[in-house]
Amino acid sequence: MLKRKEDIGLSPYELKFRGLHRSGDIRMTLFEIDFEKVNESTIRSVEELLPYKNSETLIWLNIDGLHDEKLMGELVGTLQIPADILSDVMEPGTRPQMEEFDNGLFVSIKMMELNEGKNRVSVDNLSLVVMDNLLVTFQEEKSDLFNPVRERIRKHSKRFRTLGADYLAFALLDVVIDNYIFILGGLGEKIENLENEMIMDPGRETLKIINLLKRELSNLGRYIRPAREMIIGLVKSESDFIAPVNEKHYKELQDNINQAVELLDYYRELLYDELNIYHSSMSTRLSDIMALLTIFSVIFIPLTFIVGVYGMNFDNIPELHWRYGYFIVWGVMLLIAIGMLWYFKKRKWF
Amino acid sequence: MLKRKEDIGLSPYELKFRGLHRSGDIRMTLFEIDFEKVNESTIRSVEELLPYKNSETLIWLNIDGLHDEKLMGELVGTLQIPADILSDVMEPGTRPQMEEFDNGLFVSIKMMELNEGKNRVSVDNLSLVVMDNLLVTFQEEKSDLFNPVRERIRKHSKRFRTLGADYLAFALLDVVIDNYIFILGGLGEKIENLENEMIMDPGRETLKIINLLKRELSNLGRYIRPAREMIIGLVKSESDFIAPVNEKHYKELQDNINQAVELLDYYRELLYDELNIYHSSMSTRLSDIMALLTIFSVIFIPLTFIVGVYGMNFDNIPELHWRYGYFIVWGVMLLIAIGMLWYFKKRKWF
Amino acid sequence: MLKRKEDIGLSPYELKFRGLHRSGDIRMTLFEIDFEKVNESTIRSVEELLPYKNSETLIWLNIDGLHDEKLMGELVGTLQIPADILSDVMEPGTRPQMEEFDNGLFVSIKMMELNEGKNRVSVDNLSLVVMDNLLVTFQEEKSDLFNPVRERIRKHSKRFRTLGADYLAFALLDVVIDNYIFILGGLGEKIENLENEMIMDPGRETLKIINLLKRELSNLGRYIRPAREMIIGLVKSESDFIAPVNEKHYKELQDNINQAVELLDYYRELLYDELNIYHSSMSTRLSDIMALLTIFSVIFIPLTFIVGVYGMNFDNIPELHWRYGYFIVWGVMLLIAIGMLWYFKKRKWF
Amino acid sequence: MLKRKEDIGLSPYELKFRGLHRSGDIRMTLFEIDFEKVNESTIRSVEELLPYKNSETLIWLNIDGLHDEKLMGELVGTLQIPADILSDVMEPGTRPQMEEFDNGLFVSIKMMELNEGKNRVSVDNLSLVVMDNLLVTFQEEKSDLFNPVRERIRKHSKRFRTLGADYLAFALLDVVIDNYIFILGGLGEKIENLENEMIMDPGRETLKIINLLKRELSNLGRYIRPAREMIIGLVKSESDFIAPVNEKHYKELQDNINQAVELLDYYRELLYDELNIYHSSMSTRLSDIMALLTIFSVIFIPLTFIVGVYGMNFDNIPELHWRYGYFIVWGVMLLIAIGMLWYFKKRKWF
Amino acid sequence: MLKRKEDIGLSPYELKFRGLHRSGDIRMTLFEIDFEKVNESTIRSVEELLPYKNSETLIWLNIDGLHDEKLMGELVGTLQIPADILSDVMEPGTRPQMEEFDNGLFVSIKMMELNEGKNRVSVDNLSLVVMDNLLVTFQEEKSDLFNPVRERIRKHSKRFRTLGADYLAFALLDVVIDNYIFILGGLGEKIENLENEMIMDPGRETLKIINLLKRELSNLGRYIRPAREMIIGLVKSESDFIAPVNEKHYKELQDNINQAVELLDYYRELLYDELNIYHSSMSTRLSDIMALLTIFSVIFIPLTFIVGVYGMNFDNIPELHWRYGYFIVWGVMLLIAIGMLWYFKKRKWF
Ligand SMILES: [Mg+2]
Ligand SMILES: [Mg+2]
Ligand SMILES: [Mg+2]
Ligand SMILES: [Mg+2]
Ligand SMILES: [Mg+2]
Ligand SMILES: [Mg+2]
Ligand SMILES: [Mg+2]
Ligand SMILES: [Mg+2]
Ligand SMILES: [Mg+2]
Ligand SMILES: [Mg+2]
Ligand SMILES: [Mg+2]
Ligand SMILES: [Mg+2]
Ligand SMILES: [Mg+2]
Ligand SMILES: [Mg+2]
Ligand SMILES: [Mg+2]
Ligand SMILES: [Mg+2]
Ligand SMILES: [Mg+2]
Ligand SMILES: [Mg+2]
Ligand SMILES: [Mg+2]
Ligand SMILES: [Mg+2]
Ligand SMILES: [Mg+2]
Ligand SMILES: [Mg+2]
Ligand SMILES: [Mg+2]
Ligand SMILES: [Mg+2]
Ligand SMILES: [Mg+2]
Ligand SMILES: [Mg+2]
Ligand SMILES: [Mg+2]
Ligand SMILES: [Mg+2]
Ligand SMILES: [Mg+2]
Ligand SMILES: [Mg+2]
Ligand SMILES: [Mg+2]
Repeated sequence: MLKRKEDIGLSPYELKFRGLHRSGDIRMTLFEIDFEKVNESTIRSVEELLPYKNSETLIWLNIDGLHDEKLMGELVGTLQIPADILSDVMEPGTRPQMEEFDNGLFVSIKMMELNEGKNRVSVDNLSLVVMDNLLVTFQEEKSDLFNPVRERIRKHSKRFRTLGADYLAFALLDVVIDNYIFILGGLGEKIENLENEMIMDPGRETLKIINLLKRELSNLGRYIRPAREMIIGLVKSESDFIAPVNEKHYKELQDNINQAVELLDYYRELLYDELNIYHSSMSTRLSDIMALLTIFSVIFIPLTFIVGVYGMNFDNIPELHWRYGYFIVWGVMLLIAIGMLWYFKKRKWF
Repeated sequence: MLKRKEDIGLSPYELKFRGLHRSGDIRMTLFEIDFEKVNESTIRSVEELLPYKNSETLIWLNIDGLHDEKLMGELVGTLQIPADILSDVMEPGTRPQMEEFDNGLFVSIKMMELNEGKNRVSVDNLSLVVMDNLLVTFQEEKSDLFNPVRERIRKHSKRFRTLGADYLAFALLDVVIDNYIFILGGLGEKIENLENEMIMDPGRETLKIINLLKRELSNLGRYIRPAREMIIGLVKSESDFIAPVNEKHYKELQDNINQAVELLDYYRELLYDELNIYHSSMSTRLSDIMALLTIFSVIFIPLTFIVGVYGMNFDNIPELHWRYGYFIVWGVMLLIAIGMLWYFKKRKWF
Repeated sequence: MLKRKEDIGLSPYELKFRGLHRSGDIRMTLFEIDFEKVNESTIRSVEELLPYKNSETLIWLNIDGLHDEKLMGELVGTLQIPADILSDVMEPGTRPQMEEFDNGLFVSIKMMELNEGKNRVSVDNLSLVVMDNLLVTFQEEKSDLFNPVRERIRKHSKRFRTLGADYLAFALLDVVIDNYIFILGGLGEKIENLENEMIMDPGRETLKIINLLKRELSNLGRYIRPAREMIIGLVKSESDFIAPVNEKHYKELQDNINQAVELLDYYRELLYDELNIYHSSMSTRLSDIMALLTIFSVIFIPLTFIVGVYGMNFDNIPELHWRYGYFIVWGVMLLIAIGMLWYFKKRKWF
Repeated sequence: MLKRKEDIGLSPYELKFRGLHRSGDIRMTLFEIDFEKVNESTIRSVEELLPYKNSETLIWLNIDGLHDEKLMGELVGTLQIPADILSDVMEPGTRPQMEEFDNGLFVSIKMMELNEGKNRVSVDNLSLVVMDNLLVTFQEEKSDLFNPVRERIRKHSKRFRTLGADYLAFALLDVVIDNYIFILGGLGEKIENLENEMIMDPGRETLKIINLLKRELSNLGRYIRPAREMIIGLVKSESDFIAPVNEKHYKELQDNINQAVELLDYYRELLYDELNIYHSSMSTRLSDIMALLTIFSVIFIPLTFIVGVYGMNFDNIPELHWRYGYFIVWGVMLLIAIGMLWYFKKRKWF
Repeated sequence: MLKRKEDIGLSPYELKFRGLHRSGDIRMTLFEIDFEKVNESTIRSVEELLPYKNSETLIWLNIDGLHDEKLMGELVGTLQIPADILSDVMEPGTRPQMEEFDNGLFVSIKMMELNEGKNRVSVDNLSLVVMDNLLVTFQEEKSDLFNPVRERIRKHSKRFRTLGADYLAFALLDVVIDNYIFILGGLGEKIENLENEMIMDPGRETLKIINLLKRELSNLGRYIRPAREMIIGLVKSESDFIAPVNEKHYKELQDNINQAVELLDYYRELLYDELNIYHSSMSTRLSDIMALLTIFSVIFIPLTFIVGVYGMNFDNIPELHWRYGYFIVWGVMLLIAIGMLWYFKKRKWF
């Protein structure tokens, strides 16, 4: 999300890739969706797109890899996607945004995916260009996240062909946001389990785990909160490229992203409560330690003084020569100890 | 409220039940409300609904159980409720929402009910489809919450027949929100009692109770706050399916849900204050313990030193051979002790 | 403010009193205000109102007591006040609200009054129904709060007759809100005095007083904040029942209630600061106690060790037989004590 | 700002002074501003104003002293300022407000002035009545704050004559708000200096200073925040009494008051940070004290025990009779002390 | 940002420099941009500007140095920039603002630049006056920040000539805001590194670093937050001086400044978390110290008492004469010590 020194002052029309890794080839896959059938193919050059222009079918072109500046330039020429839109596509650190242009609508959002080992969330920027009967999507790396939508296209090609590129875009955004909620749910489960463990035994590592979860949640929020802002903007825009029949779906997106933000806020509150419980238990522990020290000290300090008194070497200490002096001293000390214990019991110190 | 992996990417038109338990049969009850009389019946198939379509009477169809996908499909055909609405009905984790469609209005809200033993609040999703002279309500499990409304229909059928399906929907939503306030009131009573107890004797279990109440309140908030958002949206929408004569009732709903949210905020503040009182009393306790330890230590440490001095075995310690040496030492020690006590008294340490 | 189980699901048209106490009779007083003279009378039945209907004079009917369901029913018939309005009048726990109806405007607000002994604030619900040349006010218990307005009516009957029922309603609401500020002022004085006392001597009872004042302030806020929301709604509504000439007065009400809310926020901040000062002074006290303990311990612990060394009974301890051994030890111990004291002085421990 | 018991229920048209002190005479000064020249005079009765009514020149009448109820009544008659406006003028505790009336605009704001000794800020209520070619300003006490504006009038009378009473009112309000920023700047300097001092040596008096500065800042906020609300209302109102050519000046006022509020928020944050630094340094101090106590105790406690062992008087303690017993014990004790010191060093306790 | 006493009450039309340093000469550089070529020159007097007035080319005049009051006066005459705009230009402490005037648009924003040694951020006020085919920019000191834009003008003069002065203004503002993000990124890196270091070893200097970073971040916020407000106002204004073709660029500015504010909030949260971690680790340290002290004290206090008992000098202490008395006492003391250790182990104190 940060800015590199050399990218400051770049022209908004410059087709320069501003991401970190550019390993691997560009991969372009094409869905041609008609009422009755779906054609899937892989293309290698922009020229292969020419026959699909102005076709009556619905076309979905997905491009994995953003670093080919020549290819992007050809897209400007062939598909009339404005250069400043493609410049934003090539900036993976861009904030979720939506922008209408003459012949289409541009939307960008962060896609999150839980990795295999379920330990780390990978984040990729998804760009969607919605045009008449054409949807172009861009991502840096190939992802399996959209497989359910591919399945639905194969089964219900008629619905997609009828509802158009904006419905297809909704379907993809819906998957992205459902994944937000899914990932939040996983994190939330860890947070809720931690609370149960803490009541049992709040060890020191608990604090580290809480801080780690807080950092993770905070990072998710950095992507989800601006995405909500973008979705709300999309619904409010009443763009010509979202057909009235699909508006309700975009409103449902808004409900879903609101739910995600509410989960964020709820889990954050849980974590703050857990931090408080941890600190309470730590200060209770300190209090207990001090109470124990005080009980011991307060009982034995006077006793130790007394035995010190009769350890003095004065020539003239009458008590030392009493027959039962030693036993009387023991008795006095026992009385003192019992009195102290009774006092502490009364004040509920143990 | 969480998302299952297999439900990501589901079509918004798919009639699939996404809840947890699907025990028991579907139960459909029907109220036919006319100016002078009310017919109540139980129906077993959607076909039985056909004679009621386009009838002049007001019909309330209540369906308990959401898992019968075939039945839902028949409702699409028979009552013209859109598939995407019924798909939302079959997702019990949905956020409170309202949506207008061609021939009706869809509203969903969380219904809360205090269980018998009054220990746990059960939550169910209530969906309402308001159409012309027809109200369809859906819940996962049968509830007695609406019995007072059933009673009112039987007594004042004319009012319901005149004011229509939107008035009936209001009556049900009003019960739901009154229950929010009732449940909050019960929780609030516990919170207020705790405060009184705490002033007497803030034990350690207090902290656990505060944390439990905080969690409960926070959970209620997760349902009540989005419900408020939905009700406000409903009032603002000025839907054609809410007659002008009923608008004031929906505004009263908004007042009530606002009252619920204000109670939430008030009780939350109470709980935070209680937490503060608890921590203050804990740190006062620590301070008291330390004061006691210090008083004892500071008095006896010099005395113990003195008796140690005269316990030394040097050949030449003149004081040891004074006649009243032992008694003089006692006198000195008494003076020291009294001086210390006077100092602590002055600083109000006890 | 809470909901009783039996009131859930009540019809919004039901004339049922939902308050707690219904002691005493209903009392109805009537002001008939004309340009030149004012008639004051007490009436006993609704029928006595008939001659005043559609009169050219301005009528103010005040009703103390809300529990007479038969009387309320007659008001619906005689004065055409809608049943759902009167149902709200009979719910003393209602949230401050305003509602326009066909032939009038309904406003409800909480009235606060400092009791004689100035120890407790009593709260009553005030309902106002503003109609053409007629104002009806309802309260549960008789109050002297409005005596200054009664006085003004008697003196300036012409102004009231000219400006109408909405001006009279303003005058009453103005008194209610002035009282909010007056009561807040009294509470604020206690809060500010507490701050001055605290700087002198923050005793333990201080914490209890702060918590009590916080609770009181919080309770006032529960009535004042929603009242502000209502007043703002009233000003925004541009109701037909508020004449343009009186709009400025209602805007002044808004200024006044804003002032009340600002006082609330200011005093709340003061109380939070006082809590902080209390806790700071407590932790300074703990720190001081520990410093004293440490100074004493750190000085005497080595000394006590030294005298212990020469209290040992080894056969062969050369120092014991030195002529000035005892005095040398005293010298060493004095040096140690002075060194320690110098160190503590340097670190500013006392 | 508080409400006196006897002022509750006062008529909004009553010309009664509600301030605290009414010492001194009323003083009325008059500027008659024409394109080429400015006449300054002092007048003693309202009648002297008559020749200026409907004059072509711009008139600024400034009145110091608000307690002359007879004079105010004459202003109603002579200048057609409505009685309810003048009633607000006579309430120095009023909230900053703006109100349009038939033939003018009423604005009131708090004027703050740093006193000579720069120790206290005095607050006065400034009321402005903007009419056609006439500005009337009211303050309780004479102030030199507006001298720069008087100077500008004398130099640039043509600009004032051209831009009118609204420009003159802007010039005065601008001075008032510039003074807010100036006073905040002085307070802020103290706050920033305190931070630098604290890093050196956070003494106990620091806490008192922080609390005093917090109170002062909070008091400024009580006047500045509502003033901002008023200025924003003024800009939004698009009043007929503010000429289009002067609108940009009022927008600049809004910028300035926003800057004042931002300064308020910034200094408040600084003070909170300083409080945190103070508390951190106090708890570090406690921690250091405890570490020192613990180091001494933990080293000497075992040693004191050992010398106690060989101070026992048992008949049969073999070690006592060893030739080098005393020296061996010293060796053991040295080893223990060194071991402890090494352990504390390792844990970085000193 | 503060106000000087002598600047209070200054006329908004007064051309007086209100900054701090006025070292160095004024420097005026001129870009004349045409479709095919760009002329760059340095001018020394305003008269040299006359030939460029109403030229068909796009002119960018940059002025470094704001203190020449005579020059500013000539700009009013030659370029028809209103005096009150130039008065704001000469106040470097002005809040970021935008203002439309008859023949142009005025924008001011804070420009931040990381200095060579990368230790301090220098802040300068940038003023832009956008007119027809003319952009005038003002800064106090020369900066290299805009070099990339100068480069782009030289390469793509046609684009700048076509899109006009508003596009050029956007390009400069874009650089300013990109720099905000770049600087925030550098600060953020320090903050994130600190977190990693802290988990290892939270030393005392950590607290000082956190407080320094907090202050730095807070200072950046004072410039960035009002800049966001200004940019949002600019986008909302739909000024005539921003061509429709350039609106999308200004919307992108808004996205960028929002990103900057989100970074501010994110890093602030990080710093607060770090403060919490620091305090937790400090209180854990205190707790550990007290636990150690308590373990030692509680074990040795009873033992020291016991050896004291047998150090007493009573004539009659039977145990002293037992054969194995000394060894039995050692046994008892060992048992006590082991018991204590077992107890502490059980409570997990070490
Ligand atoms: Mg850019
Ligand atoms: Mg863009
Ligand atoms: Mg971008
Ligand atoms: Mg979905
Ligand atoms: Mg955001
Ligand atoms: Mg939020
Ligand atoms: Mg929040
Ligand atoms: Mg839906
Ligand atoms: Mg849904
Ligand atoms: Mg109700
Ligand atoms: Mg919410
Ligand atoms: Mg709220
Ligand atoms: Mg709140
Ligand atoms: Mg009502
Ligand atoms: Mg109600
Ligand atoms: Mg008043
Ligand atoms: Mg509220
Ligand atoms: Mg407020
Ligand atoms: Mg708050
Ligand atoms: Mg606030
Ligand atoms: Mg007024
Ligand atoms: Mg007033
Ligand atoms: Mg305010
Ligand atoms: Mg504010
Ligand atoms: Mg701010
Ligand atoms: Mg100014
Ligand atoms: Mg300006
Ligand atoms: Mg300015
Ligand atoms: Mg701001
Ligand atoms: Mg923000
Ligand atoms: Mg925030």
